[in-house]
Amino acid sequence: MSNIHFANLNWHGGRMSNRLAKQMEFILELDKLKKIQRQTYLADASRKENDAEHSWHLAIMAMLLGEHANETCDVLKVIKMVLIHDVIEIDAGDTYAYDMKEIKTKKDREEKAADRLFHLLPSDQAGEMRKLWDEFEAMETMEAKFANTLDKVQPIMLNDASGGLSWKEHNIKKEQVLKRNEHTALGSKDLWEFCSCIIEKNVKLENLKD
Amino acid sequence: MSNIHFANLNWHGGRMSNRLAKQMEFILELDKLKKIQRQTYLADASRKENDAEHSWHLAIMAMLLGEHANETCDVLKVIKMVLIHDVIEIDAGDTYAYDMKEIKTKKDREEKAADRLFHLLPSDQAGEMRKLWDEFEAMETMEAKFANTLDKVQPIMLNDASGGLSWKEHNIKKEQVLKRNEHTALGSKDLWEFCSCIIEKNVKLENLKD
Repeated sequence: MSNIHFANLNWHGGRMSNRLAKQMEFILELDKLKKIQRQTYLADASRKENDAEHSWHLAIMAMLLGEHANETCDVLKVIKMVLIHDVIEIDAGDTYAYDMKEIKTKKDREEKAADRLFHLLPSDQAGEMRKLWDEFEAMETMEAKFANTLDKVQPIMLNDASGGLSWKEHNIKKEQVLKRNEHTALGSKDLWEFCSCIIEKNVKLENLKD
Repeated sequence: MSNIHFANLNWHGGRMSNRLAKQMEFILELDKLKKIQRQTYLADASRKENDAEHSWHLAIMAMLLGEHANETCDVLKVIKMVLIHDVIEIDAGDTYAYDMKEIKTKKDREEKAADRLFHLLPSDQAGEMRKLWDEFEAMETMEAKFANTLDKVQPIMLNDASGGLSWKEHNIKKEQVLKRNEHTALGSKDLWEFCSCIIEKNVKLENLKD
C-alpha cells in the first residue's frame, strides 16, 4: 500500500498513534486474504473456500487437536502460525498443490510478499510475524510440523466431505496425495492415520485414482 | 448431526478412536460457519463477509493488538474466544446488530445452538468451549471485554474502508452506533478512541446520519 489509510485520522486532536496506525493498516490489508480462493470445496460442495476461512478452520483444529501432536506443542504458537501462514498469498496468490509449473516460482513470489506485507507492521511485530512464517516454512520445530500437518488434514477432510470433488476435477491420483503428504505423520501419527483411512475410502469410491 | 460421519472409518483395522471421531465431527460441522453471512462488507465493498472470515480477522487482531487492552490479557484465551464466539450462529443465524425484533429472540436461539454444537465434542472439550462462550457473552473478565471490543472495532474498520456501505444501506444513525458501542471502551480505550475518530469522519462524509 502506498498510502497509509489511518495515519491522518484525528486522534486526541493530533495525529493518530503511529504504532496503532501501522497495526490497523496491516489488519485492514489482510482483509484481502478473504478473496484468495483455494482449490478445496466447502464440505457441502457449494463453492471453493478462501484462505481466510481455511486459516480460521486450521486455528480451530489447533485449539482442539493438540493432544494428537507427536510431542507436546505450544498451542498459542501453533495457532499464530496457522492464522498467518497464508497471508503471503495476498501478493503471491494460491499455488495449487499439484501444479508443478507454478510450484517452481512459488518460493520467490512468497518471499517478496512476506517482505512487503509484514513490514506494514511496527518493526518488532514485523520481525515476530516473519519469524513465525519462516518457522512454519522450515518445518523443523514440533509446532511447525504440527501446523503443517493440520494444513494437510483439513483439505483431505473437506475433499472427503464434498465427495472428492476437487480431486475428481483435477484427476488426482492416490500416489500424488501420498507424495504431498510425505511429512504429514511428522506432526501427528494419529492424524495421518485418520487421513490414510480417508484416502483408502476415496480410492474405493473412485474419487481418487489408484 | 444425526449421523457421525467419521465413526465408521477403518482405523488400525478397527473402529476409529471415538474421541478423535467426535473432534473431527465438530470440526467438520463448523465448516458451516463459512456460509453464515454478516451485514458487513469486505473492505473493497465487493461482497459481505461471513462468520468464519470475521472470526479469523478477530483472531489476527487479538494476536497483534493485545498491548492496547486496558489491562493485561491472556492472549491465548482471547484468541480462543474470538475463534468460537460466533459458531452458535450455525443454528441461530446472524442477528443484525440493528434489528430490534430479531434481537429479542437472540439469546434463546443461541443457547439452544450452544447446547447442540459444543456437545458434538468429547465432554471435557464441550465443557471448555461452552465456558469460553459463556465468558465471552458475560463480558466480565478482561479477556471477554477485550474480545468484545475487537468484535466491535473490526466492522467499524470495514464499514469505513467500504465507504460506509452497510451503514448507508440500513440508514444507520450515529447514535445507534454509539449505543451499540457503549461497552467498547471497557476493553480498550485506545481502540475506542480509534473508532470514535472513524465514526466522526463518517458522519462528516454523510455515511452515518447525525
